[in-house]
Amino acid sequence: MSKPMINHRGPEFAKLIADMTTSLKACFRTSGDVLTLTSSGTGGLEASIVNFLSPGDHVLGVTVGFFGDRIADIAQAYGADVARLEFAAGTGADPGAIRRHLSERPDTRAVLVTHNESSTGVTNPLRDIAAIVRETDALLIVDAVSSLVGIDVRVDDWGLDVVTTASQKAWAAPPGLAMVSVSERAWRANGSAQMPRYYWDLKVAKQWLGRGQTQATPAIPLFFALNEALSLIKREGLEDAIARHARVGARARAGAVDLGLELFARPDVASNTVTAIKAPPGIDGNAIVNLVRDEYGIELAGGQGPFAGKIFRIGHLGWVDESDIDETIDALRVALPRLGFKVPVVGKR
Amino acid sequence: MSKPMINHRGPEFAKLIADMTTSLKACFRTSGDVLTLTSSGTGGLEASIVNFLSPGDHVLGVTVGFFGDRIADIAQAYGADVARLEFAAGTGADPGAIRRHLSERPDTRAVLVTHNESSTGVTNPLRDIAAIVRETDALLIVDAVSSLVGIDVRVDDWGLDVVTTASQKAWAAPPGLAMVSVSERAWRANGSAQMPRYYWDLKVAKQWLGRGQTQATPAIPLFFALNEALSLIKREGLEDAIARHARVGARARAGAVDLGLELFARPDVASNTVTAIKAPPGIDGNAIVNLVRDEYGIELAGGQGPFAGKIFRIGHLGWVDESDIDETIDALRVALPRLGFKVPVVGKR
Repeated sequence: MSKPMINHRGPEFAKLIADMTTSLKACFRTSGDVLTLTSSGTGGLEASIVNFLSPGDHVLGVTVGFFGDRIADIAQAYGADVARLEFAAGTGADPGAIRRHLSERPDTRAVLVTHNESSTGVTNPLRDIAAIVRETDALLIVDAVSSLVGIDVRVDDWGLDVVTTASQKAWAAPPGLAMVSVSERAWRANGSAQMPRYYWDLKVAKQWLGRGQTQATPAIPLFFALNEALSLIKREGLEDAIARHARVGARARAGAVDLGLELFARPDVASNTVTAIKAPPGIDGNAIVNLVRDEYGIELAGGQGPFAGKIFRIGHLGWVDESDIDETIDALRVALPRLGFKVPVVGKR
Repeated sequence: MSKPMINHRGPEFAKLIADMTTSLKACFRTSGDVLTLTSSGTGGLEASIVNFLSPGDHVLGVTVGFFGDRIADIAQAYGADVARLEFAAGTGADPGAIRRHLSERPDTRAVLVTHNESSTGVTNPLRDIAAIVRETDALLIVDAVSSLVGIDVRVDDWGLDVVTTASQKAWAAPPGLAMVSVSERAWRANGSAQMPRYYWDLKVAKQWLGRGQTQATPAIPLFFALNEALSLIKREGLEDAIARHARVGARARAGAVDLGLELFARPDVASNTVTAIKAPPGIDGNAIVNLVRDEYGIELAGGQGPFAGKIFRIGHLGWVDESDIDETIDALRVALPRLGFKVPVVGKR
């Protein structure tokens, strides 16, 4: 990122964005389009809605937490007729319930689903959900912000229509870029989609990409960084990166259980990129986050929305390995007693 | 930017965004709100429209070129009833014509104007335009992307309602952040504005800023960079920075004239942040840009839209001084003859 800026209308940028897009497509496992936007992941989610739907369209928002609500909120802000299928926090979405909704409402134009709900540490059964949506003509619009390259996502094989991710998650680049894939089915829907758009216009983005440019000035340092992050992923290998996240996730969960803590997500849907842990009774989750930050230099995350203070979370996506998890668990082992929690003595493991 | 990432929900980021916002308000010369978005300047322009208007609202788009068209296009994309007041490329907007439109259409809800039209190297007479708009209740929505901190802009004194700029312009930070000021009058309009919005929601941005956060994950390295750029501006002094841009602009125009070239913008509206120069007859402007880049390592810009190949542009905003201009003019002095243009010999100046 400390390289000097380059002209974003010149040949050097054209090569950068072409190389980056090729690498991104490999990671999304798609031969379709992947477009990169200068914005947070939330902006990518907005693009994934407004390019493919019209006001009044019936849409099913499948939500298991904060980010499932967010994408449904975006669709609603743009006038979609959103039905919400909500599942209890800590559980995953039930594909059978999605099937029932689709058969009751054959006019459903899109299903919105969060692959990895980082607010609760839950990974939804995306492959099963996709198989059900693919029995219909509805678009499957996926928030894969905190899953892609950390958890298996197969855009073409599973038939995912629009998939959004963000640079600061398992890609391990800094925040500020959103990447969105678009299937042929989605491009067909784009032809009649009436929601207003300008900055988020993916058709325009595709036209500019063909010329090696972006419509508006791109965040050049972040493009440099993401391109570098992509070469690191390529060097490790996508399968190996996903396997590493699985090992790290399992280690985080086991470590928390060893400490006598209770996991928030049900084991069958526990995420490999973030682990949500219940704050022990009588202890404020934010106090844990603050103590571990201030005294041990480790950044945990608190709970969001209704879970503020009730849970805390260990993020383990990107360049995280087992030793990082061990250090975090050790910090908790010495921090929790200071807040009055009795950590069990387990001896040699 | 090479500092490690920080938690954007933690105290360090809260201090960063608070400091940055204080400095930005000083540069905008406003005691009102300034909100920073992770996006290109174009995204900031979209925010400056969708937060304050409703579909069907009558809006006057004052345009002297590419970027004047862009902000009018954005308003139109969201359903505004846009009347375009167009002025010939190379000239500035006529405040009298704006007054006439406002008296004929007292239902005009907003006037959209580009302060500095970088496609043609023209600076519109913003202060005069503002005085006219302030005789009415219409909002004055300003694209100051390529003017702020390089050309005088006084948000409160002139009564500018919504003003957008972007980090990579005279601020001299890398691209990827848009900064938007909002007046009290604009906030009142926000209360009834019906254009759909989510990522661009400035009211939500203001709420999050109060907590020292942004709604979506911010582009942290760019926040670091902009904060640093702001301290450099403070060190030079805003008045001195604007005076330096005036000296540099004058030197660029004089240098081009010395080379026997014709300026594109009329002298009374020539910009101090970018100089547009006509390509000599029979010479492709892009050939000049390519030769000067490839052989002399200096990035000029070509013409946009209808002016592709017909003009080329010298950008001189941010950390540019007289010696940079002299180097650029010298490069043109030796490059142009290679393309068949006869540069006059002027002797000692």
